[in-house]
Amino acid sequence: MQVFVLNSGSSSVKCAVFQHEKRIFSGFIERIGFNDARVQYKDFVGNIQEDYIESVLNHHQALLVIANTLKKLQFKIEAIGHRIVHGGEKFSKPVIVNEEVKKYIRDCIVLAPLHNPYNLLGIEICEQYFPGITNVAVFDTAFHSTIPKEYAIYPLPYEYYVKYKIRKYGFHGTSHQYLMLKASELLNKSPENLKIITCHLGNGASITAIKNGKSVDTSMGFTPTAGLMMGTRCGDVDPSAIIYLQQVENISARDMEVVITKKSGLLGVSGISADMREIVFNIDKSTRAKLAFKMYCYYVKKYIASYIGILNGVDCIVFSAGVGENSPRVREEILKNMENLGIIIDKEKNFSTVGKDGIISADESQVKVMVLRTDEELMIAKITAQLAKV
Amino acid sequence: MQVFVLNSGSSSVKCAVFQHEKRIFSGFIERIGFNDARVQYKDFVGNIQEDYIESVLNHHQALLVIANTLKKLQFKIEAIGHRIVHGGEKFSKPVIVNEEVKKYIRDCIVLAPLHNPYNLLGIEICEQYFPGITNVAVFDTAFHSTIPKEYAIYPLPYEYYVKYKIRKYGFHGTSHQYLMLKASELLNKSPENLKIITCHLGNGASITAIKNGKSVDTSMGFTPTAGLMMGTRCGDVDPSAIIYLQQVENISARDMEVVITKKSGLLGVSGISADMREIVFNIDKSTRAKLAFKMYCYYVKKYIASYIGILNGVDCIVFSAGVGENSPRVREEILKNMENLGIIIDKEKNFSTVGKDGIISADESQVKVMVLRTDEELMIAKITAQLAKV
Repeated sequence: MQVFVLNSGSSSVKCAVFQHEKRIFSGFIERIGFNDARVQYKDFVGNIQEDYIESVLNHHQALLVIANTLKKLQFKIEAIGHRIVHGGEKFSKPVIVNEEVKKYIRDCIVLAPLHNPYNLLGIEICEQYFPGITNVAVFDTAFHSTIPKEYAIYPLPYEYYVKYKIRKYGFHGTSHQYLMLKASELLNKSPENLKIITCHLGNGASITAIKNGKSVDTSMGFTPTAGLMMGTRCGDVDPSAIIYLQQVENISARDMEVVITKKSGLLGVSGISADMREIVFNIDKSTRAKLAFKMYCYYVKKYIASYIGILNGVDCIVFSAGVGENSPRVREEILKNMENLGIIIDKEKNFSTVGKDGIISADESQVKVMVLRTDEELMIAKITAQLAKV
Repeated sequence: MQVFVLNSGSSSVKCAVFQHEKRIFSGFIERIGFNDARVQYKDFVGNIQEDYIESVLNHHQALLVIANTLKKLQFKIEAIGHRIVHGGEKFSKPVIVNEEVKKYIRDCIVLAPLHNPYNLLGIEICEQYFPGITNVAVFDTAFHSTIPKEYAIYPLPYEYYVKYKIRKYGFHGTSHQYLMLKASELLNKSPENLKIITCHLGNGASITAIKNGKSVDTSMGFTPTAGLMMGTRCGDVDPSAIIYLQQVENISARDMEVVITKKSGLLGVSGISADMREIVFNIDKSTRAKLAFKMYCYYVKKYIASYIGILNGVDCIVFSAGVGENSPRVREEILKNMENLGIIIDKEKNFSTVGKDGIISADESQVKVMVLRTDEELMIAKITAQLAKV
């Protein structure tokens, strides 16, 4: 059984082939739209097979390159799973793609103009190149569809929700779901009986409160700008400060959007980098790098604590993605001085757990804290195999 | 010893005279700028002495009306305390007014254009009408000056902080400080040894985390729009949702500011009222009123929990101001299902404590929960008497 997973994003296309949950091929094309796009393929043990620069001028071209490569390598694809960023309010579960599903993904373009068009194109190319094979749409927002309405609606005029569907959707759903399942497995309990807080801390970052296997709240919102401080995104800030800035700087809403999504976060505060590794490297040299580090951790700490409140306690906190998996200093700073909430980190375990799975809480900690490597593509492959019954 | 307290706000002027911390006179003028402004005075037992409508066309006129009334009633004012909304980054404590202080209050007009000009005018009129008497400036922001920089700076480009002083300032400082002192007194402990969360839930609403007598974080920010959902203000929402709305509605930043400060919050969601009493009254009749109620309480719950995290536990939670003092249903909804955080409400005590001070937590609750009536004017009077040494 082979499942092909396609993640056709805003400026890159990533893909993988899984055989019985084992990754036997992966590839990506980055810098789509440029003459120097990068194409890379890895084999079943993770060795780089090909890595070259060529002109890839649009998503259509990128997807053809990948489809042809798959054909050439003679995989026996039985089902294809697509990462779809936005499922709006309708899709609370992954679905087998049909004309109606495609129409709805198209309807959601207004909510995710940088992603849904390319997600949809990925489906269309696959239908053409792999006729007769089931395509499954796995939505980034679906796992969060269980968030109660009173946590999802914004305290803005209600008409805006009715008219423009402005509400919290949340993102990284596939990753949060994967982490929940993996944590439950490690704890040898059903997710039904657990309260879990999953921290997906990558370039984009979000936290989810999970009870009885269901997302109850998450930090990203209508867009992925909300919630935590990120590499270049601001997260939650005083909305009137944004309006004020627009006026004193005399810039348009569109330009302000660029400021809060591309020039803020770690980069904006430190003036050095959007990459946590660079920030930590400069922490003793630059007061602004130190400030950015402290702020980043403070945001995460506040969210974790607020979700402990919402969940009325927590069994397990999971750290994942680039920063979460690889930065013990960040994890230490976030969870220090929380012993009265039942959280005690084992300093040694924390510092030795880098880029691998492991429990980092002390034995006497009421709350289990763990580091888990996330794998959205594997999750999509599992869901796809299940749904397509292959 | 008599102290005069003046709160010269954006559309009203409030005042009071205290004799040894007892209020012997209070008055207000509302709807300044209109032909039908309302003037009211109360005597030392709180009986209304005068209550009439007259034309009061500007703050200058309003302040003269009050100054003349005070003269006529022959109070022996020895010091005057002024509520000043914004003290910027400079004033971390109340100060005796001199030319430099006035200049700085003027410099802060850009940060509080609807308040500081009238606060300043109040000082100037008092200097003129009560020559030789000490004026004390008590800043709404001062109590929050102890918030660490990493909690106060926003994850926006750092230049904006340098250039425009955009950071968290917080408001309601005098009220939070008063509540902290009153709670400590009731617990018979020094604030130095307590962790307190004060919830000032009025038309405007903010929550403060207090450790060792100092504000550590507060929910309002650069402006009073941030933080909790309020009567007509939105509180924290996805900043990109605001930008998106501006674009799809095709409205200016200035108009958007009106939407998020005057048309959002309880009013915006319920479509009924900005007043929690109306919302609760309609809770079984209107799904949107119910939604607004639930959302309001959820925001408060999340903030309380996040501050429990920041403080590494909490000894005491205080509810105050219009909603906090008078709505047991709100308090119940906020604190229900938090027993794993040591919070248990006594249902009966909660419902019998309306508009009066009292402890509403159960005996077995680790965290003391109390309702305290706030009195910013009394706090200003105390500070003023202390500083002016009268």
